[in-house]
Amino acid sequence: MKQESAQSPLLATKTSGYGLLDSISSPADVRALRLDQLPELCADIRRYLIDNLSVNPGHFASSMGAVDIIVALHYVYDTPTDHLFWDVGHQAYAHKILTGRKEAFANQRKKGGISGFPSPLESEFDTFVTGHASNSISAALGRAIADRNTPGKEKCKTVAVIGDASISGGLAFEGLNNVANNPNNLLIILNDNEMSIDANVGGLHVYLSELSTSAGYNKWRSKLYKAFRRKGVVTEAGKGRIQRFANSVKSLVSGKQNIFEGLNIRYFGPFDGHDVIKIVKILNDIKDMETPRLLHLHTIKGKGYAPAEENPAKWHAPGLFDPETGEKICKDSSDSPLAWQEVFGRTLVELAHRDDRVMGVTAAMPSGTSVSRMLSEFPERTFDVGISEGHAVTFSAGLATGGKRPFTAIYSTFLQRAYDNIVNDVCIQGLPVTFCIDRAGIVGEDGVTHHGLLDIAYLRCIPNMKVASPADEETLRNLMLTSLHSDGPMAIRYPRGKATTKDWQTEMKVIEIGKGRVINEQPDSDIAVLTVGPILHEAKKAVDALRSKGIKVNLYDMIWVKPLDTDLLNRIASSHSNIVTIEDGVTTGGFGTAVTEWCRDNGFDLNIKSLGAPDSWIAHGTVAQLRHDCGYDSDGIEAAIAKLAVKNP
Amino acid sequence: MKQESAQSPLLATKTSGYGLLDSISSPADVRALRLDQLPELCADIRRYLIDNLSVNPGHFASSMGAVDIIVALHYVYDTPTDHLFWDVGHQAYAHKILTGRKEAFANQRKKGGISGFPSPLESEFDTFVTGHASNSISAALGRAIADRNTPGKEKCKTVAVIGDASISGGLAFEGLNNVANNPNNLLIILNDNEMSIDANVGGLHVYLSELSTSAGYNKWRSKLYKAFRRKGVVTEAGKGRIQRFANSVKSLVSGKQNIFEGLNIRYFGPFDGHDVIKIVKILNDIKDMETPRLLHLHTIKGKGYAPAEENPAKWHAPGLFDPETGEKICKDSSDSPLAWQEVFGRTLVELAHRDDRVMGVTAAMPSGTSVSRMLSEFPERTFDVGISEGHAVTFSAGLATGGKRPFTAIYSTFLQRAYDNIVNDVCIQGLPVTFCIDRAGIVGEDGVTHHGLLDIAYLRCIPNMKVASPADEETLRNLMLTSLHSDGPMAIRYPRGKATTKDWQTEMKVIEIGKGRVINEQPDSDIAVLTVGPILHEAKKAVDALRSKGIKVNLYDMIWVKPLDTDLLNRIASSHSNIVTIEDGVTTGGFGTAVTEWCRDNGFDLNIKSLGAPDSWIAHGTVAQLRHDCGYDSDGIEAAIAKLAVKNP
Repeated sequence: MKQESAQSPLLATKTSGYGLLDSISSPADVRALRLDQLPELCADIRRYLIDNLSVNPGHFASSMGAVDIIVALHYVYDTPTDHLFWDVGHQAYAHKILTGRKEAFANQRKKGGISGFPSPLESEFDTFVTGHASNSISAALGRAIADRNTPGKEKCKTVAVIGDASISGGLAFEGLNNVANNPNNLLIILNDNEMSIDANVGGLHVYLSELSTSAGYNKWRSKLYKAFRRKGVVTEAGKGRIQRFANSVKSLVSGKQNIFEGLNIRYFGPFDGHDVIKIVKILNDIKDMETPRLLHLHTIKGKGYAPAEENPAKWHAPGLFDPETGEKICKDSSDSPLAWQEVFGRTLVELAHRDDRVMGVTAAMPSGTSVSRMLSEFPERTFDVGISEGHAVTFSAGLATGGKRPFTAIYSTFLQRAYDNIVNDVCIQGLPVTFCIDRAGIVGEDGVTHHGLLDIAYLRCIPNMKVASPADEETLRNLMLTSLHSDGPMAIRYPRGKATTKDWQTEMKVIEIGKGRVINEQPDSDIAVLTVGPILHEAKKAVDALRSKGIKVNLYDMIWVKPLDTDLLNRIASSHSNIVTIEDGVTTGGFGTAVTEWCRDNGFDLNIKSLGAPDSWIAHGTVAQLRHDCGYDSDGIEAAIAKLAVKNP
Repeated sequence: MKQESAQSPLLATKTSGYGLLDSISSPADVRALRLDQLPELCADIRRYLIDNLSVNPGHFASSMGAVDIIVALHYVYDTPTDHLFWDVGHQAYAHKILTGRKEAFANQRKKGGISGFPSPLESEFDTFVTGHASNSISAALGRAIADRNTPGKEKCKTVAVIGDASISGGLAFEGLNNVANNPNNLLIILNDNEMSIDANVGGLHVYLSELSTSAGYNKWRSKLYKAFRRKGVVTEAGKGRIQRFANSVKSLVSGKQNIFEGLNIRYFGPFDGHDVIKIVKILNDIKDMETPRLLHLHTIKGKGYAPAEENPAKWHAPGLFDPETGEKICKDSSDSPLAWQEVFGRTLVELAHRDDRVMGVTAAMPSGTSVSRMLSEFPERTFDVGISEGHAVTFSAGLATGGKRPFTAIYSTFLQRAYDNIVNDVCIQGLPVTFCIDRAGIVGEDGVTHHGLLDIAYLRCIPNMKVASPADEETLRNLMLTSLHSDGPMAIRYPRGKATTKDWQTEMKVIEIGKGRVINEQPDSDIAVLTVGPILHEAKKAVDALRSKGIKVNLYDMIWVKPLDTDLLNRIASSHSNIVTIEDGVTTGGFGTAVTEWCRDNGFDLNIKSLGAPDSWIAHGTVAQLRHDCGYDSDGIEAAIAKLAVKNP
């Protein structure tokens, strides 16, 4: 890999020189093109994506793969009068570029710039918030039915575009199961690139990959159709069933049944998702049908850029790269600590070696969470269940009833999808599932849908749950071992990004549940700062700075949100008048609130200041920028403490 | 209907006189019977169920329907070495009776008695907690894989029994989608009685009902099989595909595709779920297969009791009845207030008449929530989406993007299943979805899985959310109108059971968001009691009792948890030293915590006592018993306040 320090000449972000794309400032301009110009426009968009994303990183491979579908949709449909619902939406860059955000694209995912996902706040062409998979069918169905019931809007069309990974989520199935209940004109486009971020899993995936026009199919179709017409199985009156008949024959020949037809959704496909002219023709054919239907298109992740086509998983979000050579450009990180998830993944493998009961579970994020390490070494004890967080948790509960010790690694924001599973299937029974909550806290560029800010608040209220957050790798490892050797559920939350030390390979030890630690303490300080998680290091900077100015502040790493270290709290509350709590999460109901509840219930009238994320949505930016805005980077912490010190000198 | 006051002679609960059942105290006794004795045992169990449930109400119709399946399972499988996972589980009464709880059955759902659902705390034969639908496949898959990886347990069998309503939930689909990923021997039994509590909905339901042996099927199967063998479509090598071939032919003839086969799950059925001898034979045939498979059995809700077979929805949980005549025995309620849900349902219809934008949404609970009233009057604007709470919420969000005003009525405990949909699909976009949270607070006899105690805590931390709880019908109606005329999401929580007044038909008015009200206030009181929701009436009793003893207490109905009435709070906090908060929900992170956070952030050092549900799981009993145990019935409230008054005379 190339080092950033030895930068090669990169193409600067430019917005012209892209042929047909130069003249496109809205979908109306797309619709003014001749049909035969569309392949050229697609090529221009791909060049634009390559040039831009090489210098301003984003989701590359899936966006390249969806270009032709996006151009065809805007060509055929009267957007924004007609509505497009994207699933996840990081593949919809071409949609952003065609809908007035070509220039703004250079600032996407940057603070103040456009979002990396479609967002209704940003454009009338973005119908719905995206970021969490599998919601497009349900949301689009709602819109289609709303329009049908609104005078003047009855003729509006609604299209949901969903990937083959997203459609495996339970929510998508619930949507599919309801699609045919009420009259509507919803078109579902299945953008099937045969993978999610990592390789795809599940029966549906196998099913989709086999649901193609098999060799014998055409021959059989014609012969059988004639025979069945003769025998009266397919009647004149049932002519409308011809497509279904074809699908049935397909099933018969392939041994596979058409799931969508089973759910009363008309199925068309599969077709080539890169033949933009053909897609336009098919869309025109089925556009005005007054019945829910699904169009199955095959695409290639990274289409049009050879290095990405060859290794789409690595090109999901490649970072900076040289557009000419496909060489990735990365910072020299040999001197940096490992990422939190790397430490987690390696520690999980260690635990799996030590204890046969250890199982690894993740939901479509083996690389992101580093569960992939265990998947390589212990494939029979590691489960990537695809985009189905609810199943991941209940399946883990099932493993636990059989004496196993599942470590279930899910991003904080996606764990919200398994809330009832945590409550009902794990915590009511007190089963020993360890929730390894990745991407907890502010995540940065992925923005509002991806921050993991609610988990402390939504987990802390569940009886039987334990919630901890390590400030360093050693504590992460100790917490994992401790969970393995204790009863009941435990949640361990840690953020995205680099951990704190290169010296992470400490010997693991079981630590006491609900015991925090003193970072520094002097008897004559009246201000106690209490943290959980790696935000400790920001607090430490602030406390050190204040000390150098003569303000004495004591600092404690509580480690546990639940149970709280009540002995330590009792000592702190007895010897300070001021407490500052800091957490990388919402303060409404969070860690600071837990401390406040305890002080209230134990008769301590202290001045408590709670720092953390506010009760409002936080957009994208770097982690440092966003923490600063929320007032809990070292500057904000220092200022908050200094204010207290003035009040209480 | 008969009145309880005019009681007819009822059969007392007895545990003998039930033929073969008298000699059964464990599944081993079942297995000692001859196969031809099983129909008699099933009949004995049904008599036992009728006699017991007529005097100690419970879930009747589904339990009657599942008797034969349960007897067959315990006959064929070596329980508890082999594991049975029930979905929902209220149909598994026969399982309880056969597994050592025949005598205890008389006390089921009563405080201190056995639970109405299978519970691992209660019996080693109950493998997993049940109560929330659709979790059995995921949990059983976890257990099957755990056993396969545990020395000595490799030969254990695992069976999940799931109903046709439960299998429509997204979690069940996620389970099905993962069943074929890893080697395992899971058997899924689909207990298909063609309805949930209410009539069933969804594509899958239509699909299942048509997935039967159609008239022409047998003729066609034989002819086609011969023809296809001749033409080489079905080869000798592919003999194992014969079942699949049969399923494909079935699809061809019926025009329906076999979804389970599509997911790589072998499908057997449908067969008669009341022919216990045949079920035993089939189970023996497929018991030792080392591959995931699904057995589809048709049953009749209420089987064996004519009144229930005729009207299974009314006999889902019929209450007391005369076993001879099937006449239901109910209290004379003509003098009682309506239930909360009735007031909600009727008010929803009023709003729908007034405003075309109003839509009604529920998830398999139209009768329970009274959304059925709107479904009758406005079928095109009312949506029962089946057991799929996530879809219900995201679909509502989609309706809202189209300018509609969905009122989405879901039980508090089940709304946990839509947590991410609330956060991501509704609140991030600030869409005007009104969450009508039914069964909020302690629900009584349904117990631990059904109490709605977490909603305040898990909703309060979400930016953009508003959370209110009315103490009376008038306020409920005003809140509903207010939500219709305001922006963004709002949650309105109300409990199970009777509301407070017969005079509910008040004129609706828009009220100010975040404004509470004074119930009574005297200038010289130092104790302020703050409530949300109908628990106000318990507080009122306590306050009145204390006043009669000379203890002055002020009482406020805050109505809103979020936003809090900060003007009123400011006034209260400025003029009292003691605040008591009371809520029908967990105190960890709940309403009392919101008040505490506000006091902390606004510099009020008050003595705050927070009453509500504790941080532990609450079993079953009457609502009054359980509130008493939690210390927030009028007695508990009075005692808590009296204690404060002693401290602060």
